Amino acid sequence: MGLQAGDVVAVMDWDSHRYLEAYFAVPMSGMILQTVNVRLAEDKVLYTINHAKPKALLLNAEFEPMAKNYRHDAPSIEKIIWLDDTELDDTKLDNEKYGEYEPQTERSSMPDYVEGEYESLLAAASDAFDFPDFDENTIATTFYTSGTTGDPKGVFFTHRQIVLQTLASTLASALNAEGQGARYNDVYMPMTPLFHVHAWCWPYGATMIGLKQVYPGRYLAPRLVDLIEQHKVTLSHGVPAILQMLLKEMAARGRKFDGLKLLLGGSKLNEGLAKAAIESGIEFMSGFGMSESCPVLSRAVFDDKTDSMEMKEQLNYRCLSGSPIMLVSMEIWDESGKPQPMDGKSTGELVIRAPWLTQSYFKNSDAGNELWEGGWMHTQDIASISSSGTLSITDRLKDVIKSGGEWISSLEVETIFSFHPSVADVAVIGVPDERWGERPLALVVLKPDYADTKAADILALGLQAVEKGYLPKYGVPNEIKFLLEMPKTSVGKLDKKRMRMMCAEKLI
Amino acid sequence: MGLQAGDVVAVMDWDSHRYLEAYFAVPMSGMILQTVNVRLAEDKVLYTINHAKPKALLLNAEFEPMAKNYRHDAPSIEKIIWLDDTELDDTKLDNEKYGEYEPQTERSSMPDYVEGEYESLLAAASDAFDFPDFDENTIATTFYTSGTTGDPKGVFFTHRQIVLQTLASTLASALNAEGQGARYNDVYMPMTPLFHVHAWCWPYGATMIGLKQVYPGRYLAPRLVDLIEQHKVTLSHGVPAILQMLLKEMAARGRKFDGLKLLLGGSKLNEGLAKAAIESGIEFMSGFGMSESCPVLSRAVFDDKTDSMEMKEQLNYRCLSGSPIMLVSMEIWDESGKPQPMDGKSTGELVIRAPWLTQSYFKNSDAGNELWEGGWMHTQDIASISSSGTLSITDRLKDVIKSGGEWISSLEVETIFSFHPSVADVAVIGVPDERWGERPLALVVLKPDYADTKAADILALGLQAVEKGYLPKYGVPNEIKFLLEMPKTSVGKLDKKRMRMMCAEKLI
Repeated sequence: MGLQAGDVVAVMDWDSHRYLEAYFAVPMSGMILQTVNVRLAEDKVLYTINHAKPKALLLNAEFEPMAKNYRHDAPSIEKIIWLDDTELDDTKLDNEKYGEYEPQTERSSMPDYVEGEYESLLAAASDAFDFPDFDENTIATTFYTSGTTGDPKGVFFTHRQIVLQTLASTLASALNAEGQGARYNDVYMPMTPLFHVHAWCWPYGATMIGLKQVYPGRYLAPRLVDLIEQHKVTLSHGVPAILQMLLKEMAARGRKFDGLKLLLGGSKLNEGLAKAAIESGIEFMSGFGMSESCPVLSRAVFDDKTDSMEMKEQLNYRCLSGSPIMLVSMEIWDESGKPQPMDGKSTGELVIRAPWLTQSYFKNSDAGNELWEGGWMHTQDIASISSSGTLSITDRLKDVIKSGGEWISSLEVETIFSFHPSVADVAVIGVPDERWGERPLALVVLKPDYADTKAADILALGLQAVEKGYLPKYGVPNEIKFLLEMPKTSVGKLDKKRMRMMCAEKLI
Repeated sequence: MGLQAGDVVAVMDWDSHRYLEAYFAVPMSGMILQTVNVRLAEDKVLYTINHAKPKALLLNAEFEPMAKNYRHDAPSIEKIIWLDDTELDDTKLDNEKYGEYEPQTERSSMPDYVEGEYESLLAAASDAFDFPDFDENTIATTFYTSGTTGDPKGVFFTHRQIVLQTLASTLASALNAEGQGARYNDVYMPMTPLFHVHAWCWPYGATMIGLKQVYPGRYLAPRLVDLIEQHKVTLSHGVPAILQMLLKEMAARGRKFDGLKLLLGGSKLNEGLAKAAIESGIEFMSGFGMSESCPVLSRAVFDDKTDSMEMKEQLNYRCLSGSPIMLVSMEIWDESGKPQPMDGKSTGELVIRAPWLTQSYFKNSDAGNELWEGGWMHTQDIASISSSGTLSITDRLKDVIKSGGEWISSLEVETIFSFHPSVADVAVIGVPDERWGERPLALVVLKPDYADTKAADILALGLQAVEKGYLPKYGVPNEIKFLLEMPKTSVGKLDKKRMRMMCAEKLI
C-alpha cells in the first residue's frame, strides 16, 4: 500500500489475534504501531490520531461509527483496513446472560472507503516477507496516556526498549515460586487491553516463550470467565477493577478459579479485595508501572519467606507493589530532590531509571523535560521503599491530602474501609476545608445486598483504626457519600480528578 | 594503582568470593577482566597472558609457583595483588578423606614483589566508589579457548552482551516446571570454573536475582558435596565429568542429592549417566554453548509434555541439547552453506546468530573471519534440529568419522556402549583404515569392580543396536581398547585430538 519505514499505523480494535499480528508486523516492518485507546471520549481519540498522524488505520467494524468521518477529520490517514469479527459479534450475545455488560448493539458493514478486509488482503498477499534490518533504537510503538490534566500525551518506545522490558518483566515473574510464576506450559490471555501500554508487554513475552494465547475481544465478564474455564487460562494480568469483575462473575456461577495467576497493577489493591481473590482461587502478584515506563517497574517476589507468612502479613505484603525488577533503579525524593532513606517509613516522590522509559513526550518536549527533571523519570507517585526493597505506593502526588499541615494517605483510609462487608468500592479524596485547608471525604459504592448500610457503620472502622494506632485521628473522614458507580478512568483507575470536580460542582 | 579504563586485569584463582567481586568491579570500572584458565599447561597460561597483556594480576597464592617469574616472562604486568585463602588451605585437608583428589601441597607465602594482600588493600580503601558511565559496547571480559588446534584463541564480550546473555539464559531456566527451573529462593554454587566462559554467566545471574551464593574454591569432590549438603545448594551447573564426580562421591556416602538442579553442558551427556543422575536425586537440564557464545545458546525445556514422558523417552530427551533460548537463531548448513530442513534427521554444521557472540578472536582477525564466514557464527558442531526446535549435537566437525563414504556419529556409538554396566567412560574416535578410509575405534574406562570385562561383551551391545535398527552395521567399531583414564581437556571434555594422536603414536 505504499507505506514506508517511519510511517505510523494505528489500530482501533479490542484484543484480537489480528492485533497480536500487528504488534509484530508493524514494528518489524520499520513502521510505528499506534495503539489507539478506544475507551477515551471520542474527541480525545480523534485528538490522539491527529497528534500521531498515522498514514494507515486498522479499524474494527465496531468503531466505524466513531471513525466514519476520519477521512475528513483525520486527514493523515490514507488507507483504512477493515477488521471484522463475525464470530465475536456481540449483538448475537444472550442479552439476559450478559445483562449489565453492555454488549455492542451497532456494527457497521464494510464501507466503500476502506482498502479491503484484513483477512482477504492477507490471503491475497505472498506468504513470504523479507523483514528489513534496522537500528534497534528505531521507534516501534506509540500511544497516549489518558492524562489527569490537559490533553493526552504521547509516549513512544523503541525495539530495544520493548525487548529489554519483555525479558526483564517475564524473568521477574518466572522466578516466583510454583503457582505464582510464569512457566513454559502456561495458557495466556490478556485482561489489560492491547491498546494499554502493550498489554504490559505480555503479548510479546507470551510469544517469545511460545505459550498458547487466547484473545478475548471486548472485556465482558461472562466471556472472560467462559474463556478462562474453556481454555484453562493460567496466566493473565489486569487492574483491580478487572479482578473485582471476575470475582463477581465467578461467584454468580458458584465456582472458583483453578489457580489462575493474575499480575495486578494500575492501581493499588486493597486488602479486602485481596482476601476475596485468594478465597476464589486466584494467585495474584502486585506490581507497579506506568504508561511512561513500558510499563513494568516492580513485581511481587514470592519465595519461601512469603510462603511461610501468616495470612494477615501475607495480605499486607501482597497489596504492596513488589520490588524493582532487574535493570530498574528507584529512589524516593523529597520536594527539593534529595533522596530519602529506604527504611519503609520515609516517603517522597518515586523517581526511576531503567533502559525502557519513554525518552520524552511526543511533540511535547516541555512536558518531557518536566518528566525527566534532574535526570530521573518522575512518577508523580508518593512512595516508601523498605530496606529489603519492597515498594509501597502511598498516594498520587496530586491526590495526596494535606489536613492541618499533616499528610493523609488516601490509600491507607481506603484500605481500612475496604474491610467493611458492605463496601464494594471506596475512594478517599481531599476536599477544601476552611479550618484545616483540606479534609478527607470518602466515596463508597455499596454491595447490592447492603443498600441500607449507614455511613456511621463504615466510619466506625476508621475510629477503630485510630484506637489501634493504625491511623492518625485527623485521618478519619468527616463524612461518607454513597455513589451508585465509582468514577474511573478509561483504564479502570479511580478518577480522583473527576471526583474532586464533581464535589466542587456539588454533583456528589 | 594507576590502572585506567581499557586496561586488562587478569585473575588467577579458583572459584572464590573475591573472583565474584572481580567479575563486577573490574568491568564496572571500565577495565577488562581476563579470566585466566589456570588448568592449561603452564606455557599455554603464559601464552594467554602475554597475548592479552594485562597490567595487573590478581594472583592466588596457590599459583605463585607458576607465576613467580612473570615479572620477567610477562612484562605487561605492572601490579600483582595477592589472594590468600587460609581457611581453604588444601594442605590442611584430611588426606585420607580427599584421597585421589590431589589437594594442593604447595602454597607460597606472600612474596615482596606484590602490591599487597587483597583484603588488606580493600580494608584500607574508601567504602565509596563512583563507578563511571560508559558505552555499553565497551569490552568487559576476555579469556582464551583451550582450542583443539594451535595456540589458544582469545574471545571477548561487552557489557551489553553479558547483560543480554544473563537475562536470556536465566529466563530460559526460570520458565521450567517446578524442580527444574531457577527460582528466587535458590542457593547457588558454580561447578563450572569462574575462569571458564564466565561460569556460564550464572555468577552474574545469581547476583541479579539476589540468591545466596557459595564459592567452593578448587573443585574437590568431597568438598563440593560437603558444601551442597551443608548449604542446601539447589542450583548449579557443570560438564558431565563433574556430574560423574558428584555421583561417585555421593554414592560413597550412601546418600542421595535432595533435588539439586544441575544445568549441564560442555559435552553431550550419555543416557547411562543421565539415568544414574536421576536415580541419585539430581534434576539436570542439558544445554549447548561454547566459549565463543558467552556461552548459553540452548537449554532443555521442561513442561507438562516432558513431565508425562515415559522414562526411556525422557532419558533420550534429556540427553539432547534443548531448544534455542530467546534471541538465538540457529540453522543447519551443508558443506556449501545451504540451510538444511529442521526435521530432526538432516544434519550439517550448526551456525548461529545471537546478540552475545564474540565478534572476532582477539588480535587474530583471520580466525575471526573464518568463525563468521557467511555472516553466521560457525560452531564446528554437526547437529540436527527437530521440527519442534530441539537441538541434537551429533558430532564435532573434526571428530566425525567417515567410513566407506558414510558418516558415523561417534556420539551415537558412545551412547550405546555407555549402557553396559562395566563402562565408566567411553569415547569413539576415527582411526585411519586402508580399506574404508576410516574406522571407528572405541576407548573404554572400566568401573573398578568390572576389571575383567571382555571387549566382546561391550561390542555385543553394538551388534544388538544394529539388529534393532538403531545403528548401521558399519557403525560398530572393530575393536575396543581399555584405558585407565580418559584423556580430557582442561575443562573436562573428551580430548579426541589427543586420543587420535596417541593412537597414531601407538601409545594406545
